[in-house]
Amino acid sequence: MIDNEIVLYDSIRPVRWQADGLYLLDQRKLPDEEVYLHIVSTQALYQAIKEMVVRGAPAIGIAAAYGAVIAATESKQAGRQDFQARLDLLASSRPTAVNLFNALKAAQRIAVDSADPISSLLSWAHRWLADDISANKAIGAYGARCFAAGSRVLTHCNAGALATGGYGTALGVIRKAYQNGQLTHIYSAETRPWNQGSRLSLWEFEQENIPATLIADSAAASLMQKGLIDWVVVGADSICRNGDIANKIGTYSLAVLAKHHGVKLMVAAPTTTIDLSAESGDSIVIEQRAVSEILPANYVDGVVNALNPVFDVTPAHLISAIVTEKGVIESPDARKMRVLTE
Amino acid sequence: MIDNEIVLYDSIRPVRWQADGLYLLDQRKLPDEEVYLHIVSTQALYQAIKEMVVRGAPAIGIAAAYGAVIAATESKQAGRQDFQARLDLLASSRPTAVNLFNALKAAQRIAVDSADPISSLLSWAHRWLADDISANKAIGAYGARCFAAGSRVLTHCNAGALATGGYGTALGVIRKAYQNGQLTHIYSAETRPWNQGSRLSLWEFEQENIPATLIADSAAASLMQKGLIDWVVVGADSICRNGDIANKIGTYSLAVLAKHHGVKLMVAAPTTTIDLSAESGDSIVIEQRAVSEILPANYVDGVVNALNPVFDVTPAHLISAIVTEKGVIESPDARKMRVLTE
Repeated sequence: MIDNEIVLYDSIRPVRWQADGLYLLDQRKLPDEEVYLHIVSTQALYQAIKEMVVRGAPAIGIAAAYGAVIAATESKQAGRQDFQARLDLLASSRPTAVNLFNALKAAQRIAVDSADPISSLLSWAHRWLADDISANKAIGAYGARCFAAGSRVLTHCNAGALATGGYGTALGVIRKAYQNGQLTHIYSAETRPWNQGSRLSLWEFEQENIPATLIADSAAASLMQKGLIDWVVVGADSICRNGDIANKIGTYSLAVLAKHHGVKLMVAAPTTTIDLSAESGDSIVIEQRAVSEILPANYVDGVVNALNPVFDVTPAHLISAIVTEKGVIESPDARKMRVLTE
Repeated sequence: MIDNEIVLYDSIRPVRWQADGLYLLDQRKLPDEEVYLHIVSTQALYQAIKEMVVRGAPAIGIAAAYGAVIAATESKQAGRQDFQARLDLLASSRPTAVNLFNALKAAQRIAVDSADPISSLLSWAHRWLADDISANKAIGAYGARCFAAGSRVLTHCNAGALATGGYGTALGVIRKAYQNGQLTHIYSAETRPWNQGSRLSLWEFEQENIPATLIADSAAASLMQKGLIDWVVVGADSICRNGDIANKIGTYSLAVLAKHHGVKLMVAAPTTTIDLSAESGDSIVIEQRAVSEILPANYVDGVVNALNPVFDVTPAHLISAIVTEKGVIESPDARKMRVLTE
């Protein structure tokens, strides 16, 4: 079914491989400029991931897969056995991206087992990318089936094509439902402090001619109060074994507000996002980012300060459905998650 | 009691009258620059109010009171009976500021009844300003009594000295409680899209050496989840006869989140904020501001758009206490509000 999908609303590829190497869409510059950076060394890729040229765990994993091709080529040209050291450099670019480490571990195994590592790694990287997009399209199809006709949806942050190989997770569900004619309104929350909503999700909608409305994060409750939202649809940075999730700061806020207003909450993510080592949200450590992201510069080193948590934890009981490429889990709990991961 | 108050944490005056006329602290430029604009004509004051040099309903009312002095002086110098026309110009600067209209109506009565209108108006304007500050200090004292020792508070937008004659309403309560040693933590929400929290409230705290922590609006729920907030303290743009309030967008969101987490919500405002013509929040029309405040410029006239409501409505049942200069109303309702306003 997935293979026969009409390729509609699927025009964005943040990570591209061409004859002369790797190209990354520079997400720091969107929506003002659409620029692909040509990445020609593992050192340059390390910098690009570190500086958020590419972001979103699946997209980082794909960039790293192609990075392994570059690393193998560099090793061969230099005539040195430093392939692993180059992978280690890439692994150090971001501290918490599970997909990054998984991709690099897989690359190591491919290279060891192959007579022609460069060629084998390139085939594998292409497959890694294609599998990610396939998973997203399956998530999109499963997720869209949850919506009644005429639904109004709100998404937060960017769990879109830009965060993945293409199509996206939460935005994949919205793309598919929009294509099906199921949606009468799509809202995107700005997503402070990095504005992934206004900069990235809105750019995706604009690119593919999908009408969408931006709101300030704090306006979501007011829309729910007026009965204008049926579903909140978000991605996940991590899914725990009991169905708790970690996602962009503000997700938990929307989850509580949704519950209060009888609005449903969908978490759309591939099964690779499930962290089998995390029993519940209690074991998730929330990263704090630089306060300079929100604190005006002239307060620095003053009396006032800022707190800038990147993620928050939404408990399973506030989630209406977790949608993966394997299907829909309604009202997730530890038992249902166990069935999914077995 | 109020008169003997130690003048501590009360250093900010956004509207000042000096021998050579009116000075307004330009709030568009805070916190980067602290500049007072010298206002020498009703035309200049009209522009200043319209362009948000001064904002906050009580502060606008005070500026307009001094504006009446300028108008009377101009009329006398020009030898023309155009005092009322000059007041009308000021009244047209902002569409919904009740305090603006009240001040100008009072000025008209003063001028008619006086043999020396300029002198009478100046005395009256000074009193108007002093009364506002007194009311805020009474609100501060009443509000602070609601807090247990060691409380952690969160405020939204700027209901501070900058929005009033001085001291502030919500920030007046926080100032007083901080002075009393009752607070262990003060959080200020950024308040998108105009950033009144990061630009104005944080500037007030920085000025008076009161430690405070800025957070993104969407991080408030996460702090409540961790048990880090005891009270949300906000001002009000309008209080209805049943205790519903209208305030800066995001207030309703915080009210629902507070209720869910067992956090209390205080609304601090003078009785002049009560709108006797509004039965409930249903009768409040929510102003929509320009989408350019949140929508990146390159989307303009594109497929995507934005919705930018300035206020939201919080129903009385989510409010723990309304604090005015007359005292504290716990769990406000129509009956309690009637007693207050009779």
